[in-house]
Amino acid sequence: MLSTMQDVPLTISRILEHGRKVHSTAQVTTWTGEAEPERRTFAEIGNRAAQLAHALHDELGVRESDVLGTLMWNNSQHMEAYFGIPCMGAVLHTLNLRLPPEQLAWIVNHAADRVVLVNGSLLPLLAPLLPHLAPVEHVVVVGPGDTSVLEGCAPQVHDYEELLAGRSTTYDWPELDERTAAAMCYTSGTTGEPKGIVYSHRSIYVHSMQVNMAESMGLTDADITLPVVPMFHVNAWGLPHAVFMVGVSVLLPDRFLQPGPLAEMIASERPTHAAAVPTIWQGLLAELEANPRDISSLRTVTIGGSACPPSLMAAFDELHGVRVCHAWGMTETSPLGSLAHPPSGLSAEEEWPYRVSQGRFPAGVEARLAAPGGGFAPWDGASPGELEVRGPWIAGAYFGGVGAEPVRPEDRFSPDGWLRTGDVGVITPDGYLTLTDRAKDVIKSGGEWISSVALENALMAHDAVAEAAVIAVPDDKWDERPLAVVVFKEGEKSVPYEELRDFLGENIARWQLPERWAVVESVPKTSVGKFDKKVLRAQYAEGGLDVTELGRSTTS
Amino acid sequence: MLSTMQDVPLTISRILEHGRKVHSTAQVTTWTGEAEPERRTFAEIGNRAAQLAHALHDELGVRESDVLGTLMWNNSQHMEAYFGIPCMGAVLHTLNLRLPPEQLAWIVNHAADRVVLVNGSLLPLLAPLLPHLAPVEHVVVVGPGDTSVLEGCAPQVHDYEELLAGRSTTYDWPELDERTAAAMCYTSGTTGEPKGIVYSHRSIYVHSMQVNMAESMGLTDADITLPVVPMFHVNAWGLPHAVFMVGVSVLLPDRFLQPGPLAEMIASERPTHAAAVPTIWQGLLAELEANPRDISSLRTVTIGGSACPPSLMAAFDELHGVRVCHAWGMTETSPLGSLAHPPSGLSAEEEWPYRVSQGRFPAGVEARLAAPGGGFAPWDGASPGELEVRGPWIAGAYFGGVGAEPVRPEDRFSPDGWLRTGDVGVITPDGYLTLTDRAKDVIKSGGEWISSVALENALMAHDAVAEAAVIAVPDDKWDERPLAVVVFKEGEKSVPYEELRDFLGENIARWQLPERWAVVESVPKTSVGKFDKKVLRAQYAEGGLDVTELGRSTTS
Repeated sequence: MLSTMQDVPLTISRILEHGRKVHSTAQVTTWTGEAEPERRTFAEIGNRAAQLAHALHDELGVRESDVLGTLMWNNSQHMEAYFGIPCMGAVLHTLNLRLPPEQLAWIVNHAADRVVLVNGSLLPLLAPLLPHLAPVEHVVVVGPGDTSVLEGCAPQVHDYEELLAGRSTTYDWPELDERTAAAMCYTSGTTGEPKGIVYSHRSIYVHSMQVNMAESMGLTDADITLPVVPMFHVNAWGLPHAVFMVGVSVLLPDRFLQPGPLAEMIASERPTHAAAVPTIWQGLLAELEANPRDISSLRTVTIGGSACPPSLMAAFDELHGVRVCHAWGMTETSPLGSLAHPPSGLSAEEEWPYRVSQGRFPAGVEARLAAPGGGFAPWDGASPGELEVRGPWIAGAYFGGVGAEPVRPEDRFSPDGWLRTGDVGVITPDGYLTLTDRAKDVIKSGGEWISSVALENALMAHDAVAEAAVIAVPDDKWDERPLAVVVFKEGEKSVPYEELRDFLGENIARWQLPERWAVVESVPKTSVGKFDKKVLRAQYAEGGLDVTELGRSTTS
Repeated sequence: MLSTMQDVPLTISRILEHGRKVHSTAQVTTWTGEAEPERRTFAEIGNRAAQLAHALHDELGVRESDVLGTLMWNNSQHMEAYFGIPCMGAVLHTLNLRLPPEQLAWIVNHAADRVVLVNGSLLPLLAPLLPHLAPVEHVVVVGPGDTSVLEGCAPQVHDYEELLAGRSTTYDWPELDERTAAAMCYTSGTTGEPKGIVYSHRSIYVHSMQVNMAESMGLTDADITLPVVPMFHVNAWGLPHAVFMVGVSVLLPDRFLQPGPLAEMIASERPTHAAAVPTIWQGLLAELEANPRDISSLRTVTIGGSACPPSLMAAFDELHGVRVCHAWGMTETSPLGSLAHPPSGLSAEEEWPYRVSQGRFPAGVEARLAAPGGGFAPWDGASPGELEVRGPWIAGAYFGGVGAEPVRPEDRFSPDGWLRTGDVGVITPDGYLTLTDRAKDVIKSGGEWISSVALENALMAHDAVAEAAVIAVPDDKWDERPLAVVVFKEGEKSVPYEELRDFLGENIARWQLPERWAVVESVPKTSVGKFDKKVLRAQYAEGGLDVTELGRSTTS
């Protein structure tokens, strides 16, 4: 039987036109570092998004499906690009300004950005790359900056405000299929080349609804949100589009991401919600200790991007009365994957294990744990598996490059289309996820998995141990077994391996205890300070580690 | 460019499986009128929905696209039908048990219900209709009732619990296209035949998200909702599906809709949210006055279905600390059309005009006002027009009957596919709707509209007037002009029309004042007590009213 419902595509232009009309007076405030921030209403953002689209169409020749890069901080002009570009049918490609220059260039070329919008303050980063960016025909400079660095560059250079000036403030947005590409973002790619994810109008629309659901961030027009998380980091977790849907005012920090200015803008603009990675909050906490300010306007703070130290959550609770909500997601998941609101009706103490977990899945995110021995692990809070997810805002492929079909590497997507997250974890019967390890680091021993992270944490609890990394090494009988690589604290090198193994045995099951041990001066690290287990594995394979093998403990 | 997002259909089975798994312990409590209500968990509802689907498939031969009627109160078995039937690909057709029997029969035949699920207590209503319900092959009796009334009836009779018993509690739900028909509901049709609206999986999924958005009902797993609004009344405003999405517990009143039992179930089960039409709340208010009980668990109450008297809203505020939120919708709008949360930051006094309006549109409901003279009226809070709406959960056609194409009467749908609501109103610049009249009752005078309701309300404010109805009558010069039909209070028949006209002139623009007047003993009424203007118009056309025409006032 046919439904009699209207067939209305879920497009970003509907969010934009709703926000500029029904929530016309909601504010976008951009911190400027000066006495007065820049203030615009949603109506003004809507007007200027239309002007931008006219300029791009008429002046720069931008057409549907063209890709436009943005190398910008969180500011009102970036909001305008967030709407103007996808609504006209083009693709917003946010560029991560923290990437190594050669990676940035690789990404711009792979996505074939025809235009780059760049904040004036970021010209010194872009200018030296331009000779290597063949697809870029136009550079649009947003805000003040030294444009002399662009002299002699191949692309045409435009001033953002000059481009917009005098153009029509309405645009007859095309009625796009909701599956049209709207925005793209590359994962930073710690292994291999960066991978592009292309969001659709539909995925962004439905994700925006989820962000605004009471069970998620639950924002309304009574809120002011502060997305500290960059707009080049998975669309600032969906906030720029979500706020236009319900009229949430926005405070944007531009390039002022240091603890001092952040504390200042919170105290003076009084946001009710904020979103950022843990390191930002750690810095803010220290700043507030040194230099107290009132941040009590914050009702709740969403923390994601990496696991949040429980001590940080507790400190915000106790010192500032600010509730931290832990969240998990990936570039591939738009990013809302799970949020750690505890179930209702619990005491603060009972809530704690839920709050420090990665959180509960919303209805739009189906989850399963691919078990070590095949099949799927039960949701019993104990059986680990690799997390796989499915849903309308979750990637099913990666961008294949200009003119190429999307690619679906089989180590990242299951045959039935689920995303393999590369994370290993457990899920409780009530749907709360706790991640325990990366799938590539887990030790696959006799059809069971041993968490490298659990062994490392247990080892580092020993008084003599400064650092410990555990990697999988080949084993004839068990396929893989753990190798513990230990860094002793100064002057503690005498602790025998047997003693460390017995110490581990107090908290770790016998069959998981490492037989192989090595001592090193320091654990090799990646550029962001994580243990670089690739290097350790290569060292082991080349015989570069002095490994001792203890008598095997019982492994049944 | 292709998006790389997964193509996951938005289906009800995803809501069901999420709710039964992630929110397995949320409760569905059905009032029984006895010491203990019936309590089931979402897990149990999910198990039984699967059992129901197996029974329908294996025992009754139900297949995809088959239509199944439910003649049921709000209870847990009705929830099971809400999920089991659409998830298996069949269509849930909720039957309004308050309709005149002949209309009910017409609807069952028009929709071709193959099966009717009926509460035992409603068998006396169904049994006499069965001989006239040719498509019905099976009757499933839910709960206790006198089945002897079914003896000799043509359809096969089944007991609900016997059908379910022993069947598998999981079902391999088909992966349906999200535009598949999921549920249907007929408008009661005050004019002409009832009209069927067919909701899709997609429309119900997206509507459920909207219900749960913080700006709408904003429900979470900390809530218990009490849908007093019947599940045959536009799917109880979407609540049964919405609750499974976020784990809201539900209190269902079954047939206990009288003020006494309602007050009792609120006091003992402590719901935090409730939804009902104004008359229910009016009754509850009187009951609480006579027989005080604690209803303070209610955080907010959604009122819709017809305009809510401001006095009622104020009484709940002041006497019980319960916040009433006015809402507007139609069977054709799933029904969430607008909700009257005031903008943030206002005083209670400033909030009031917003709270008594029909409310603000969410992003999924685009609205426009078709102006009297063609084109669209501005959103200025003053210019009236017929409300037209568009969106993913709004009807674009009516069910055409078995095997027939959907129908799109041009008085109900614009050429570009918007729903013509038949309501006339104004919209403020910030998107708040106030309905002023029905389109068929408005007086179209010289290209401008005169609200019959505004004239009636103004007239009834006169001390001598008991009732007043205003209808449009043909006019050579102005196309239509208002005719005021007045019922005087006992012993007040001497007030001259000129005096009434001058009284109106204090609040109504001169050009809108009626020239034509008539007095009657009483205004004819419909079965639900509304003014029956069809009858008045007929009386006027047949010369059955004693009309006096005053000297025309200035009409420019």
